[in-house]
Amino acid sequence: MFKSKIVKLVVNDVRFPTSLEQHGSDAMHSDPDYSVAYVVVETDADLKGYGLTFTVGRGTEIVVCAVEALSSLVIGKTLEEIVTDFSAFYRLLTSDGQMRWIGPEKGVIHLATAAILNAIWDMWARAESKPLWKLLVDMDPRKLIRCIDFRYITDALTEQEALDILEKAKAGKEEREEQMLKEGYPAYTTSCAWLGYSDEQLSQLCSAALAEGWTRFKVKVGADLQDDIRRCSLIRKMIGPENTLMIDANQRWNVGEAVSWITTLAEFRPLWIEEPTSPDDILGHAAISKALVPLGIGVATGEQCHNRVMFKQFLQASALQFVQIDSCRVGSVNENLAILLMAAKFKVPVCPHAGGVGLCELVQHLILFDYISLSASLNNRMCEYVDHLHEHFRSPTVIKNAHYMPPTDPGFSCEMLDESVQKYGFPHGDVWRSILKQKGSQDNFSE
Amino acid sequence: MFKSKIVKLVVNDVRFPTSLEQHGSDAMHSDPDYSVAYVVVETDADLKGYGLTFTVGRGTEIVVCAVEALSSLVIGKTLEEIVTDFSAFYRLLTSDGQMRWIGPEKGVIHLATAAILNAIWDMWARAESKPLWKLLVDMDPRKLIRCIDFRYITDALTEQEALDILEKAKAGKEEREEQMLKEGYPAYTTSCAWLGYSDEQLSQLCSAALAEGWTRFKVKVGADLQDDIRRCSLIRKMIGPENTLMIDANQRWNVGEAVSWITTLAEFRPLWIEEPTSPDDILGHAAISKALVPLGIGVATGEQCHNRVMFKQFLQASALQFVQIDSCRVGSVNENLAILLMAAKFKVPVCPHAGGVGLCELVQHLILFDYISLSASLNNRMCEYVDHLHEHFRSPTVIKNAHYMPPTDPGFSCEMLDESVQKYGFPHGDVWRSILKQKGSQDNFSE
Repeated sequence: MFKSKIVKLVVNDVRFPTSLEQHGSDAMHSDPDYSVAYVVVETDADLKGYGLTFTVGRGTEIVVCAVEALSSLVIGKTLEEIVTDFSAFYRLLTSDGQMRWIGPEKGVIHLATAAILNAIWDMWARAESKPLWKLLVDMDPRKLIRCIDFRYITDALTEQEALDILEKAKAGKEEREEQMLKEGYPAYTTSCAWLGYSDEQLSQLCSAALAEGWTRFKVKVGADLQDDIRRCSLIRKMIGPENTLMIDANQRWNVGEAVSWITTLAEFRPLWIEEPTSPDDILGHAAISKALVPLGIGVATGEQCHNRVMFKQFLQASALQFVQIDSCRVGSVNENLAILLMAAKFKVPVCPHAGGVGLCELVQHLILFDYISLSASLNNRMCEYVDHLHEHFRSPTVIKNAHYMPPTDPGFSCEMLDESVQKYGFPHGDVWRSILKQKGSQDNFSE
Repeated sequence: MFKSKIVKLVVNDVRFPTSLEQHGSDAMHSDPDYSVAYVVVETDADLKGYGLTFTVGRGTEIVVCAVEALSSLVIGKTLEEIVTDFSAFYRLLTSDGQMRWIGPEKGVIHLATAAILNAIWDMWARAESKPLWKLLVDMDPRKLIRCIDFRYITDALTEQEALDILEKAKAGKEEREEQMLKEGYPAYTTSCAWLGYSDEQLSQLCSAALAEGWTRFKVKVGADLQDDIRRCSLIRKMIGPENTLMIDANQRWNVGEAVSWITTLAEFRPLWIEEPTSPDDILGHAAISKALVPLGIGVATGEQCHNRVMFKQFLQASALQFVQIDSCRVGSVNENLAILLMAAKFKVPVCPHAGGVGLCELVQHLILFDYISLSASLNNRMCEYVDHLHEHFRSPTVIKNAHYMPPTDPGFSCEMLDESVQKYGFPHGDVWRSILKQKGSQDNFSE
């Protein structure tokens, strides 16, 4: 399997018209159409790899274009060549002498890198006949750190420190793996309180979630203070004082504004405020974090934190109290390993971002690895869950009693159903042909 | 003119095969083909606007794709609508509810935004029959600050502070404008010492530059320490102790490595070290800056600093001593105004990045405005100059005695010759057809 040579890379623009029902709406993304740039890597053997990066509609075609540009760096390589010196392959993709200019390691080109590398990791796990989390958990620490590009982070984490963290956490690994297989990893839900939902819809969804055993809930805030007070009050009443509430502003505020707005919402006792301001503003997040200490509210961010260098600084500056890794924003497992190891070193809990399309499927592997092989703790830790669009995947997430149950199928769980890829293909799939025809124009859904 | 409605936006992928002669080579970009995504905005009147963003070859097609995606937000608007509330138009482009996900305000989508906004500013200056620098210098401060999106920077610079800086600098403006028209703005040259040049080539170019009156020289370093010592020694001997030397590592080092490498080169008395490490590493640059204080060497960065939020933090953290604005990396004049004003507030000199294709043509306008309307100082200030590819522009830069002479033609100086756009169009222009045919493959120049 490892001698298989990559001979083809196909990328598809697949969009789901979620904006029609306000799913996923927040203070900065009022009408998202959850989408993916979906990558299939084919070899000269039976082995394939499936990867994706998540987007929210318009602009997906730009990421598709970037995947195509990067594909020449991938085709012709064998799986063995790639994984034997995986950090060199990572560097090849991220430091191409011409393409790095339009990043580097950020935005469109990095989202494209993530989609491709996710497919490579999927392929590797399939070649080993293991789900990705198990591939990582079983991997020799020295091999594992050879997947990481340590450039620009050695002032916070050296290779030796990374090794030490992995070696030290070996104690109790088997027990934790068994525990996960039995109980799963704790999740929280964001499905109840998107910004575009009415109070009635919110109440209904919240009741249903409580009945299903959910105990941790996230509410979108930041567009209108009075609305936020009403909605937070409603949710807090429904879930009671014992359950956990988080709030998420999706980058809506300036630094000063963030502090005063959150102070007003403090009476609802949120565990964290997520993305209070620009995802680039490390010092701003540090100032907000400091101001919120007396209120007992932490700052969470990461879904738009664009690479390990940014996460490094967020940790160095004590600018976050919850690290929200994303499986598609940074350079796939390779870069997330660096981020998880830095979070472990700085003793900050990791609570992954998920939702969208495929993000739950992907990130569950990383957080399982984090618990079993790194953090060894569930204290203040949980993984986001959103109950949408899982039906399009061949191995969808399994949630039991508000916990992610470890995937058992080999791979990274993001292979989509062929039918879904066809039907939701943009703009020529059946679903989009019909929507675009009904709308009579492409105003909101232009290519 | 202001009622003209934008009816068409055309974008071209134009590449110059500079890698064939190692022009522009540095420690991270070994084979750049200087390129542009070139935008022409057409109206229903005679008025047009020309804009571009700079790239280095492969990947330009991705930026072109992004410009096309953004174009629907531009077409149908009148110049008047745009410039009456320019920050709102800026926000429209940068905060589209779907497309912001693939940035926000960084990488490909922000380079595309820059190309479009550069064209709009060119159009505005043409409508006023003024070169852009003069449009800015003459603009009422209140109108000027309405071009700026202050989101995420009010903790460093409020609208009122920006106004105060502009008002205060009114004293002596006319004299400074006259001075610039007579003497021009001081420049430095990077043309002599690209990393791929031989010592002989370097000596020849340096002699010629000295003869032309150049007194400030930049050398590329960072690939090999012994090479750097030899090259810096050679240049310092040639230019003598009085002239100014700068060194540029193009992000090659980790933080610790940067400090030790620069310490070794300190004997050649560089004024600054440029891009010692990752452009995202604010805290790393702050650590390097601090370590270099005893050596009397400053840190310069900015050409890949992706937006005003990053510049804000570099300034807040004292992480740079020279602000290198770029005319295409951030959101055009709008965002550069914010950066220039923040630099003025923090009293850090601005020394723009230029070179490539069109960067000199564009950025000269911004630095003239900075001197005349903001900084009122030439102390430790100069603008980069590279003597390449100017012949493709209708109003190329004019350098006299190592100074940029203020442009006089209306607009932003980046209108290209039709013939150049055709001939160097990628991949179908004559030049590329011939290169690709000669190479017999597209290995190094794939689309």
